[in-house]
Amino acid sequence: MVDVGIIGATGMVGQNFIRLLDQHPDFEITTLLASEKSAGKRYEDATTWLLDSEMPESVKDIKVVESNPDKVDKNVEILFSSIPSDFAAKIDPDFAKEFVVASNASAMRMKPHIPLCIPEVNPETLDMIDDQQKAYDWDGFLVTNPNCSTIALTLTLKPLVDNFNINRIYVSTMQALSGAGYNGVPSMGILDNVIPYIGQEEEKMESESLYLLGDYENGVVKDAPFNLSASCHRVAVINGHTEAVFIELDKEEDIDDIKSKMANFQALPQELGLPSAPEYPVIVKDEVDRPQPRLDRDACNGMGVTVGRVRKDQAFPNSFKYVLVGHNTIRGAAGASILNAELINERIL
Amino acid sequence: MVDVGIIGATGMVGQNFIRLLDQHPDFEITTLLASEKSAGKRYEDATTWLLDSEMPESVKDIKVVESNPDKVDKNVEILFSSIPSDFAAKIDPDFAKEFVVASNASAMRMKPHIPLCIPEVNPETLDMIDDQQKAYDWDGFLVTNPNCSTIALTLTLKPLVDNFNINRIYVSTMQALSGAGYNGVPSMGILDNVIPYIGQEEEKMESESLYLLGDYENGVVKDAPFNLSASCHRVAVINGHTEAVFIELDKEEDIDDIKSKMANFQALPQELGLPSAPEYPVIVKDEVDRPQPRLDRDACNGMGVTVGRVRKDQAFPNSFKYVLVGHNTIRGAAGASILNAELINERIL
Amino acid sequence: MVDVGIIGATGMVGQNFIRLLDQHPDFEITTLLASEKSAGKRYEDATTWLLDSEMPESVKDIKVVESNPDKVDKNVEILFSSIPSDFAAKIDPDFAKEFVVASNASAMRMKPHIPLCIPEVNPETLDMIDDQQKAYDWDGFLVTNPNCSTIALTLTLKPLVDNFNINRIYVSTMQALSGAGYNGVPSMGILDNVIPYIGQEEEKMESESLYLLGDYENGVVKDAPFNLSASCHRVAVINGHTEAVFIELDKEEDIDDIKSKMANFQALPQELGLPSAPEYPVIVKDEVDRPQPRLDRDACNGMGVTVGRVRKDQAFPNSFKYVLVGHNTIRGAAGASILNAELINERIL
Amino acid sequence: MVDVGIIGATGMVGQNFIRLLDQHPDFEITTLLASEKSAGKRYEDATTWLLDSEMPESVKDIKVVESNPDKVDKNVEILFSSIPSDFAAKIDPDFAKEFVVASNASAMRMKPHIPLCIPEVNPETLDMIDDQQKAYDWDGFLVTNPNCSTIALTLTLKPLVDNFNINRIYVSTMQALSGAGYNGVPSMGILDNVIPYIGQEEEKMESESLYLLGDYENGVVKDAPFNLSASCHRVAVINGHTEAVFIELDKEEDIDDIKSKMANFQALPQELGLPSAPEYPVIVKDEVDRPQPRLDRDACNGMGVTVGRVRKDQAFPNSFKYVLVGHNTIRGAAGASILNAELINERIL
Repeated sequence: MVDVGIIGATGMVGQNFIRLLDQHPDFEITTLLASEKSAGKRYEDATTWLLDSEMPESVKDIKVVESNPDKVDKNVEILFSSIPSDFAAKIDPDFAKEFVVASNASAMRMKPHIPLCIPEVNPETLDMIDDQQKAYDWDGFLVTNPNCSTIALTLTLKPLVDNFNINRIYVSTMQALSGAGYNGVPSMGILDNVIPYIGQEEEKMESESLYLLGDYENGVVKDAPFNLSASCHRVAVINGHTEAVFIELDKEEDIDDIKSKMANFQALPQELGLPSAPEYPVIVKDEVDRPQPRLDRDACNGMGVTVGRVRKDQAFPNSFKYVLVGHNTIRGAAGASILNAELINERIL
Repeated sequence: MVDVGIIGATGMVGQNFIRLLDQHPDFEITTLLASEKSAGKRYEDATTWLLDSEMPESVKDIKVVESNPDKVDKNVEILFSSIPSDFAAKIDPDFAKEFVVASNASAMRMKPHIPLCIPEVNPETLDMIDDQQKAYDWDGFLVTNPNCSTIALTLTLKPLVDNFNINRIYVSTMQALSGAGYNGVPSMGILDNVIPYIGQEEEKMESESLYLLGDYENGVVKDAPFNLSASCHRVAVINGHTEAVFIELDKEEDIDDIKSKMANFQALPQELGLPSAPEYPVIVKDEVDRPQPRLDRDACNGMGVTVGRVRKDQAFPNSFKYVLVGHNTIRGAAGASILNAELINERIL
Repeated sequence: MVDVGIIGATGMVGQNFIRLLDQHPDFEITTLLASEKSAGKRYEDATTWLLDSEMPESVKDIKVVESNPDKVDKNVEILFSSIPSDFAAKIDPDFAKEFVVASNASAMRMKPHIPLCIPEVNPETLDMIDDQQKAYDWDGFLVTNPNCSTIALTLTLKPLVDNFNINRIYVSTMQALSGAGYNGVPSMGILDNVIPYIGQEEEKMESESLYLLGDYENGVVKDAPFNLSASCHRVAVINGHTEAVFIELDKEEDIDDIKSKMANFQALPQELGLPSAPEYPVIVKDEVDRPQPRLDRDACNGMGVTVGRVRKDQAFPNSFKYVLVGHNTIRGAAGASILNAELINERIL
Repeated sequence: MVDVGIIGATGMVGQNFIRLLDQHPDFEITTLLASEKSAGKRYEDATTWLLDSEMPESVKDIKVVESNPDKVDKNVEILFSSIPSDFAAKIDPDFAKEFVVASNASAMRMKPHIPLCIPEVNPETLDMIDDQQKAYDWDGFLVTNPNCSTIALTLTLKPLVDNFNINRIYVSTMQALSGAGYNGVPSMGILDNVIPYIGQEEEKMESESLYLLGDYENGVVKDAPFNLSASCHRVAVINGHTEAVFIELDKEEDIDDIKSKMANFQALPQELGLPSAPEYPVIVKDEVDRPQPRLDRDACNGMGVTVGRVRKDQAFPNSFKYVLVGHNTIRGAAGASILNAELINERIL
């Protein structure tokens, strides 16, 4: 078993890390880090548990320590980071001096030599790590995962990019409340309402997707050769981002072939049998009214992305549309970092 | 005062007609039509009132009659129709033999010689009426209004079409529950959820928009010379459709100019001062997180469409994006028929 | 393994039976019954699956048969019934002629010789079965479980009745949407709203509770010697009924003692180790803002009832108050029938 | 016209004051007070407007001043206060030295010589003002209104207390989100959920109700001679508190008589024709499923309380039950202070 720790353990994403790592076959939580005011308390006493499953017994008695590398036992190999981006900009690199950091924060994404990685999409970016350690003079290293809405989208685009030539992509999201953090969206703001704006979300989707689907050569990522425009909106859903996708290809392709390429998509995590990797990460549904976030977010324990309504776009040549649902706090956050860590554990540690 | 009647008066759209026509300066409700089981009852006794305003006193004692032209007093000049499409296919033409029918039903839209009209967008289609009366041998006539999601979109597109050259449009909707009728969406289906499918909605948006924005010549409409692709979704909002719009023009245009063209848009109903016409039917907001359905649906008593987030699309040349909110049961249904009737009253009766 | 069948298998409660019986240690679903229009189809083809977990593989290929005792294989021992009350009034007795019927329907509750049973509360009522078979001349027999809101309440009252003398009870409910069936509550009716009425619910709670907590002697139930008044309301919650309870005892009791009696409550199902019985069916929480339906409905796989805010009632002598949450479609419906069947299987079959 | 000001003008209750005072026949807003950071700005620039009606033109250009009595023009006669209780404890008395303060804050309620007043219920408590000015050596004075849930309840109890003898009252609330302030309840906490706890709410309801319905003699209030127990819960409703009420009288009374006493209730504000007073402040509905917060909260512009389901309590002698809905931010907050000010204006100024 690999000893792991969680930075930001008392927050909602931190709680999701704990839930997902409980009973993990390879990782054992030994260290929980949080702010000064929680330090020294038992985890159970320091935390208002927000999830609908019970707090795992195994963490209740762990004494929370301050988010400082000196406070972490040297046996710990991997630290999962789930702190707000402004803190992460300083704290994640601090820990990367000594430890492997799998971070869900946006602060360091796409910085030079820092892999932004989805194991099914661009695992080759882990090769940046050598350069990273040299460039920053770190003994540990830092791997990031993309934004929640980007991950779900990119997982469904990867089998398309592998098989077809994309000209352009438009995506319109209907994102869940949990993406904004527990206190992010007041109930007065969203009940009987839609909020048509999520700060920096469109920018992240547009840039991260092209990076993830681009080519990695000689330590550098070259963006994918098409563009993507996003419009991002918040709806009254607890968990599970829904995205409407419009794609123009360079030539007409058969809809059944497109569906089949998605449904049969497998990649490195599936080959390696990584513990959190679904056998088929993209599920394609034929029912006319799926996917729906409440019904489909938990597919493959929240690590699958469900696609439906794959249909020809009658308005434009060589075009088709679909809708996807992915669990934003599992595949889109904590589960993404864990899958990265599983790949690191298999390939590097 | 013009005597008017409502076909389908006990249903939710019928109730909206009543609410909007109460205190109307030119129209007076004298006749309420409904199914056989309601016929003969006082309107108050026949109806489960579903709106959050009170039932107007003026209709409570009206005796409901069966939806049959023979039951309608000859003094009635205009009948508003708000019945399900399969019934409307037979009933609307039946009434058009003798009366002016302003119908919200989809059954007869875009049929030969039947105007599908938004007074701000294509009032010239009312010229079809002469041909219509000859072709069908009617003494009355029938005018229809578009689908709720189409109306809101087309109102915002009209000033663009008038001033710029559009290449392509993508629109992704987040539609309110009331669009499906009172019993249309079970609460078990939509709470903490999105339903990514609305039967026939995408088809209607794609075809009706091009008709509305097309050219009317010699009694025939020629579709607008661009295409539009829609993806339609239901969210947990009572009233007010939200739509994310992506537009590619033929050349770069200034965003402020685009906003100004929308905000200053006025057309025939504004010139004529039709009672239900807002002074400016498109409201442009600068706040980063508007429009929102709960806050903006009632703009101009529900007859305005609110636009926000008008922004350059960084992903594609000559492109921009925006979000709109329109009240689906007012501007998108009952109010649309009423505005058509006001135009007819001013120009034809 | 005991072969079991489900009457009303395609409906929402039927689906809950299937979900709960999948992987059951003693029961195996071999027969699925539904209306004529589903008969002859594979279960997967006949059913719109409404739950957020996947349809179990084991039932997909079962051919649905009509709800007629003659269509059921004689190997089947227990039939679970989850059909609307008006159908159940005829169908449940029909099946009881030959089979054991564990019914969630209200039709036959508290009829002479028909046990209305919660295994933790009044298992002795199963002794009625001999008389039942004689009285109705049945080879099988029929056991019913109470109404969803009654079950949750009564489970928490049982340890109180066993230890204290109750003078009076007031209960005010905030009930979940699923209690009304999938199509029971339109979304237009409940979003941003409360519906302060549930047909016959108050009557059921008031009469069933006193029966369940009464004394069983010589084949007859004598109601508990206190009264209970209920006010029942529907709120925008998918699953999980919340109930506010006010109790007056005959003398002052210690709040900690009351909590302890609830938290340590165990009864026959716990002694027998019935598969669906939680070790402690009443969970008592100390957090000031619990129980909450979304966080607590799944306690003990939905078979536990969570109590919180047990506090002295400062307004009245000898009085205290608390709030409870129970899962209405598990402990309050399908799970209730299954626990009855487990008790029958252990004690009678 | 009386010049009035609003302390806490940029907050949600402050905005409600502005909305309700716009077009008021006797009061004119001339002064808007807020925190230091808003001071000096135009109101429109200082405020994120949260209501679904537009910000009145008349206040947009008013320059916000700091909440300090020295900053207020001496022409101002009445200040409405809607600030958090901990600030109000200091600020409200500060202003009362010079001005009339109508406060919605709980800080000073039921303090010696400070009237806690609902004009329909206990207008005689305004007689305390002389003593108040002497005791505190103020030139102005301070009048408070009760808690939102208390006001709605007490208005319905007043005609009962006037006509019958009450033995005991139990009330269970389902309260709207706006009662907690705009940021009070995170959406993650309440969607698909109930929160069964509102800090200090039960204590306020239990004590304030007895004060309001008590006897005022010689400058002192003697609590009403019965008790009331409350259990308070938050539900996913934007505005409008729903309350289930159980009442035991000293003898059997006719239900129709009880309804009639409520429906015909009129008091001093009705006699005086105060501008915000509804003709009949308690509306009694006969529909089985009313009142509902979304449909009934706006009755009498939010100043009426709607009662329904008035029914005999079969469980207990001399008992009956009902459900009420009142608008918590209008009749329960801003509107309550305004009605107090209207009474003061009529009787004292």
